[in-house]
Amino acid sequence: MEKQPIGIFDSGVGGLTVFKSIRETFPQEDIVYFGDTARVPYGPKSKKTVIDYSIQNTRFLLQHNIKLLVIACNTSSSVAIPYIQKITSIPVIGVILPGAEAAYNISSNKRIGIIGTEGTIRSNAYVDEILKFNDSVETFSKACPLFVSLVEEGWIKNPATEIIIDNYLSYFKEKDIDTLVLGCTHYPVLSPVLNKYFEGKVNLVDSSHAILSKIQQYVDEDKTCIGTSQFFVSDNEEKFMKIANMILGYPIHDLKRVALGESWFVD
Amino acid sequence: MEKQPIGIFDSGVGGLTVFKSIRETFPQEDIVYFGDTARVPYGPKSKKTVIDYSIQNTRFLLQHNIKLLVIACNTSSSVAIPYIQKITSIPVIGVILPGAEAAYNISSNKRIGIIGTEGTIRSNAYVDEILKFNDSVETFSKACPLFVSLVEEGWIKNPATEIIIDNYLSYFKEKDIDTLVLGCTHYPVLSPVLNKYFEGKVNLVDSSHAILSKIQQYVDEDKTCIGTSQFFVSDNEEKFMKIANMILGYPIHDLKRVALGESWFVD
Repeated sequence: MEKQPIGIFDSGVGGLTVFKSIRETFPQEDIVYFGDTARVPYGPKSKKTVIDYSIQNTRFLLQHNIKLLVIACNTSSSVAIPYIQKITSIPVIGVILPGAEAAYNISSNKRIGIIGTEGTIRSNAYVDEILKFNDSVETFSKACPLFVSLVEEGWIKNPATEIIIDNYLSYFKEKDIDTLVLGCTHYPVLSPVLNKYFEGKVNLVDSSHAILSKIQQYVDEDKTCIGTSQFFVSDNEEKFMKIANMILGYPIHDLKRVALGESWFVD
Repeated sequence: MEKQPIGIFDSGVGGLTVFKSIRETFPQEDIVYFGDTARVPYGPKSKKTVIDYSIQNTRFLLQHNIKLLVIACNTSSSVAIPYIQKITSIPVIGVILPGAEAAYNISSNKRIGIIGTEGTIRSNAYVDEILKFNDSVETFSKACPLFVSLVEEGWIKNPATEIIIDNYLSYFKEKDIDTLVLGCTHYPVLSPVLNKYFEGKVNLVDSSHAILSKIQQYVDEDKTCIGTSQFFVSDNEEKFMKIANMILGYPIHDLKRVALGESWFVD
């Protein structure tokens, strides 16, 4: 039987935190990654537009005969899964449910914070999933739109980053949370400074780890082989490779650019 | 003769600084504004993609029978004008040439700084235009991608903004510039803090003002009438209206959302 790859899409480069986690845990798997770098970010976009783009991304990955679709993008995971399931019968795993479950399980005082893009926070998706476990959990949410730009600039230990973290997150200190969901794939890059900010007293939930147990059942059992990694983006290969190197710790190869949607370019 | 409107497009809401300037100076003009809020920002995108989107935006405005196209977006102005001129014979005015000319004229020591998005800075468009006036001018360029997010958050007088300004702009102090081109439509919102940073010793060039003399020759001579303003966006009307209020100082009406490009949304 021919080996089928796992497909991953994200709005851009941030989903490589999810790719990295899957790649390290399931080295035998073939993986195809698509980053929609032409239309990043999804965070500030409307629900309808995010669904539209998510369906286009899925159609592209389906052309690669994927056996499983992982949506690394939180914004997309929060609104698009039911619509994607209308166009394909393969399993679809987003980051919201695993992240919500991990947060619920790890929290002792059941006071949980959630940070993400405007779209993710507006969707209330993490809160909805957490409350399904137990509706007496207290949740507190805040959009942190500047975090993505800070990560993409590589300004992790910058004094400005510390002030911005305090601007956004002092709210959670007041609320006495013991767990914070990092509801955007870029945010785990900030974990060291977030841990410092909370003095190690708050559990940080990274969906790229939480998702692994959900993927387990679909993986290839032949662990003797080594899987391939293919990367596609819709724009700006150079920038993708630069940030990829920062997230993965090694350079990526086999990166191709593809055009999604109609082109009006005349030359 | 039927009155024809001026068309303005921008990658999003920032171009309202240009709209505001035109609206105040030519109150008799009808204006149609399109902000491509579904695909903002253009700054990090490749040249080809920016040209593609610019042509789609132009085609949309041409449907409104515009007599003149003003490209408020610096990134788009820096790469797309020759391609737009292939699809229409109406005059096309970008922000680069007027901004470059104003900077050249106002600078005494002919040491000029340019800030903008990654796309604008990479294009070298301002530098090329400035050097056409006199190739002995010294120019210094730097991309400041975080500025857009700071403006959109409304964090103008925030301590983090001061640190970020210093991170990006200390370079220009070392270079002894006397003029700085604000090569992104969002940046004029930061003018008060930039003036403070440079202690009022550096001329800030705002293309939304520099563009007015270029528009003069195309305007309606009947100054007794009051023009209309129509706004279109490709996504997220709510966020557009919020930031519009901040930039214009008054709320906008007559805002419609339009879909550009093919939709795959299924419901």
